[in-house]
Formats: sequence, structure tokens, C-alpha cells
Amino acid sequence: MNAFEGAEMISEIKRRKLAYPLYAITAEEYSLGRSNIEVARDMLAGGIKILQYRQKEKPKRQKYLECLEIRRMTVNAAATFIVNDDLDIALAVKADGVHLGQDDMPIEAARELVKEGMIIGLSTHSPRQAQDAIARGADYIAIGPIFPTRTKKDACPAVGLEYLDYAFKHVAIPFVAIGGIKLHNLREVLAHGAPCVAMVSEIVSAADICARIKEILSFHPCVLHSYL
Amino acid sequence: MNAFEGAEMISEIKRRKLAYPLYAITAEEYSLGRSNIEVARDMLAGGIKILQYRQKEKPKRQKYLECLEIRRMTVNAAATFIVNDDLDIALAVKADGVHLGQDDMPIEAARELVKEGMIIGLSTHSPRQAQDAIARGADYIAIGPIFPTRTKKDACPAVGLEYLDYAFKHVAIPFVAIGGIKLHNLREVLAHGAPCVAMVSEIVSAADICARIKEILSFHPCVLHSYL
Repeated sequence: MNAFEGAEMISEIKRRKLAYPLYAITAEEYSLGRSNIEVARDMLAGGIKILQYRQKEKPKRQKYLECLEIRRMTVNAAATFIVNDDLDIALAVKADGVHLGQDDMPIEAARELVKEGMIIGLSTHSPRQAQDAIARGADYIAIGPIFPTRTKKDACPAVGLEYLDYAFKHVAIPFVAIGGIKLHNLREVLAHGAPCVAMVSEIVSAADICARIKEILSFHPCVLHSYL
Repeated sequence: MNAFEGAEMISEIKRRKLAYPLYAITAEEYSLGRSNIEVARDMLAGGIKILQYRQKEKPKRQKYLECLEIRRMTVNAAATFIVNDDLDIALAVKADGVHLGQDDMPIEAARELVKEGMIIGLSTHSPRQAQDAIARGADYIAIGPIFPTRTKKDACPAVGLEYLDYAFKHVAIPFVAIGGIKLHNLREVLAHGAPCVAMVSEIVSAADICARIKEILSFHPCVLHSYL
């Protein structure tokens, strides 16, 4: 295997780790009193294959310990584990990837610190940001917020479905639609070509998380199940 | 050179990087409107040889860019550069070290991510925490807060000079006294055996930072200058 083939293989492994229709994100403050760990357990039991740990206001030690446990759980569930923002925690717990915002460390600086196989995802809010992220080597991008959202305090204003239309036509790397996506608007989002949707409150605020995930996954089988 | 000699040499380099009497820490909100970069420039011009970047509430990209610039400045000034909390930024800018709190990632997890030569410092607030930090491989520890302080929002209550007395007798690794240390109580702190003192507002809030540092360094020459 030469270097080119090696890089191709790593690239293919990353694509497979991202080739799932539903991307679940933790949000303890909306989890009806359940901990991130409990919620992650239910998400995985419900069939989630991409799980992002997002937790802003907590001491880093606690975030690290939670991620360590979720890393163990996601390995057992053969699920992809992404840590939001904290690259050091992602590295320490050997997560599959890290998700960065436009205000985080530049992707090139992050890339220098991680092993080749680590996924780096980037939030983007416009076609310009999408092209910039692709040019700078993002493994996937988030497209949004599609609708207004209250689960991300520093979220930018909703960008609407037009940006998703753009992504469907012009983004050749994996992307995930995010921001205010619920059961009631899921069909619309899928119709605009989202290969993967991220949901936060629609999952973590469900009384029965497993049942909610199954409901989401069965919602539009021809689109969602093609990735399972 | 065998492995033991190599480790000894790295250890010696770390000790030399820490063998200075005054440890300056940024605090932009107390810097009279000056940026961290401007303050760092003045600190280095004043003779500071250990500089810690501490900045809680700022987007990570901005912190990274500031640290990148301060890293460049500290290299030129042959000064030791420590980044507070953000191990990923410390790694990305190739700082000399990282300073962790009791609520940060455990030191063992941090150690696994850094090169052998990187300094890891730990805040400690009691003899038990000091011994724990030493056992777990801290390169230096901070002893404090000696006096009440307002520059660290999550600071624990002042522990007083007794803990410094303990450190002087029982701590065999480099340590730095911190917390509410000012010109008016510096003599007292030095008299209790602090080989190095950390100051925040007394430096960053000075109208003339260079002059203030020279004043501090000349304050007790027999103790402070022995390290220069």
C-alpha cells in the first residue's frame, strides 16, 4: 500500500463513519433531568450511530469524564463519537472526531494536532463558509441553522432551506443539516436533500428517547434507511 | 545518552524554564483597556520571564490567535510561555507549558497528549492537593490563593500563608505563590519562602507595566534577583 492508497483508505473510513442519516447531540439542560450519560445510553439503544457530545458550561474535568464514558459506550455500540469544541478532550478520550465552530481554532491548527484518521467537522452558515471549510480540509460540514433554534445559545440566525439547497447541489463532502429540525419539519428538510439531519431537543427532550429515535428513523424510510 | 539521562535532561530544562522569581498572568478585563497582546509586550519589555495567558470568556479562535502572537513574542524574549486551561491551544501554539486547575482534565490524561518536554503546572489549595499533584507528575504547582483575590472568578477562598509555609518545607518541585499578592504584601510572602510569586492585577492594572515590574523585581533583591 503506497501513501496515496493509505490516505484514500483513511478517507473512506471517515466517510463510512459519517454515512448515517441521524446525528444526535447532547444537551443536558433540555434532557428532562437526565444526565448526558443516561441520554447517550438511550440514544445508542435507540440506534443512533453518530453521537456528538456538546456541553458548554461544565468544568472540563467533568466533561472529560463524561466523554470517557460515552467513548466506551460508543465503541461498544459501533457508533461514531464526535466531541464539540474541546479538541483536547477529543484527543484524550480518542473520539472519532471533533466538531468546530467558526469561532474555534482554525481547522489547519486542529489538523496538525490530530492523527490522520480523526474526523474534523465544521459549522457553516453560508455557501462561502462551506467552500472555505472544504478548501481547508473539513471532513464534513454542518449546514444551518435551517430553522431558529434555542438549544445553541451562540447560534447565528436561521439561514433557511436555501443554504441546504445549495449544499445539495454544490457540497461534495458529507454534510448534516442542523438547527430547529423536528419531526414536524423533517419531511421538508429531507425533501431538500439532506443526507443526514442533526437533532438536539427533539431527541433529548423526548420522554422516551429510544421510541423517539425509532419514530424519526422510520419517518421517511426511503431516505433515512438508505444509510443504515 | 541513555533514556535515563534523556529524561534527566528534559527535567533540567523544565526546571530552568521555571527558575524565575516573578510569574505574570494576563487578565484583559483588568488591563485598563489594553489588549492581552499589548500587556504581554510590556511584561516582556519589563523583564518577565514566565508569562501565563489566562483568558476565560473569549472565542477560542481569538484565544488561539493571541497565544500564537504571544508565543512569537516570548520566543524572542527567551521567556517561558504557559497557557491556562486550554491544552489544545497550548499544543497548537507550541507553548512551553499548560496550567491546569483542580477542575481541569486530570494531569495523566493531559500528559499523554503532550511531548515529554512540555511543562504541566497545577493549581493546588492544600497540602493534600500538593502531594497529589507531585505524585501524579506535575512539573510545578501553584500554592494559593494566599490572599483573597478578585481576578479569578472561580477562585477558592484564600488559604493563607500557612500553606506556603508547608510548601516551603515539604514541596521539592518548583512552586509559585499566587492570589492577592501585591507590592504591599510581597515582603511577607517572600519571607515565607516563596521562590516565585505570581501577580495578576498588580501588573496588568499598572499604568506603567514595565516600571511596575522593575519595582517588583527590585523590591527584595536578595530573594528575587538570585533567580535572574
